[in-house]
Amino acid sequence: MVNRNIFAALVHYPVYNKKGDIVATSVTTLDVHDTARISKTYDLGGIYLVTPLEAHRQLIDRLFGHWVDGHGAEYNPTRKEAFHKLSVADSIEGAIAAIEKEIGKRPKVIATGAKSNRGSIDYDAGRRLVNDGDPYLILFGTGWGLTSEVMSKVDYILDPIDVGTGYNHLPVRAAFAIIFDRILGR
Amino acid sequence: MVNRNIFAALVHYPVYNKKGDIVATSVTTLDVHDTARISKTYDLGGIYLVTPLEAHRQLIDRLFGHWVDGHGAEYNPTRKEAFHKLSVADSIEGAIAAIEKEIGKRPKVIATGAKSNRGSIDYDAGRRLVNDGDPYLILFGTGWGLTSEVMSKVDYILDPIDVGTGYNHLPVRAAFAIIFDRILGR
Repeated sequence: MVNRNIFAALVHYPVYNKKGDIVATSVTTLDVHDTARISKTYDLGGIYLVTPLEAHRQLIDRLFGHWVDGHGAEYNPTRKEAFHKLSVADSIEGAIAAIEKEIGKRPKVIATGAKSNRGSIDYDAGRRLVNDGDPYLILFGTGWGLTSEVMSKVDYILDPIDVGTGYNHLPVRAAFAIIFDRILGR
Repeated sequence: MVNRNIFAALVHYPVYNKKGDIVATSVTTLDVHDTARISKTYDLGGIYLVTPLEAHRQLIDRLFGHWVDGHGAEYNPTRKEAFHKLSVADSIEGAIAAIEKEIGKRPKVIATGAKSNRGSIDYDAGRRLVNDGDPYLILFGTGWGLTSEVMSKVDYILDPIDVGTGYNHLPVRAAFAIIFDRILGR
């Protein structure tokens, strides 16, 4: 199974903070490691870390250098493999443009989120969609989620992960794992 | 949906390290936070952090105090809710005994792991099993996984998460999310 036409973006801006302000969240090495390994497991075309903050893009570059070219590559080769899927973009639009440049076709964009959204599609529909041969970019918001402006511009929104327990406060890296398993697993 | 008869254990001993030695791994606050939130999302009966190291059990108690009774409870109430699912045990057998004491019946034990095991069951079988009304404890190994001695003693072993890409190096917290979604989600 290869999913080379399916890409993910971990979005650090624009997202909400706890108070509902629009902010740029911090890139965490943890999210980077986990989402890179999950992306490699499901053999995505790649994952984009989206942040407008130059210092954070430099942090990612340093991490990348360590695990791909540096001592880390020898110490932990499975991490090196995972990191080969990783790129940085300064905006969602920048990630879309980079994918279009790489594969020659503009990806359709699917947003994810913890809240209900009118017109969102379920996971069976999501699975059919991403297996139709077209390129897709799936957005994951950090912090308190993607802004409503982002939501209003995407091509599709996936249903929240709702298992009927009334509690829906998963870490973004857990949502990332579950969503790719639902649309690409098995 | 409630899954009050289904429990998880995040096992820090006995597990393998990279070289194949049997060790006690460190409890990380990150694993604690993520697995607590996932357990609450799928409404498990509870999650046990298994470690024989007294200092690590104390670390968990401090975390617990902060997020459940301290400043953290007010700052982040959804984390408080998640942490109410969390207990500590000094061994796998200790977790089993605690569950038996709590619900009056000894749970059957299901192990998980990244490698193939003879006689392992698939996720459809796992889903039927954990929904049969009996109590179950599902084990997740940290480090390089549960020891073969543990594997030889459990009642069932779940298939590895294998999506056919040849890469199977997920963080334990990602495996935890995916496995509970497969057997309890939707």
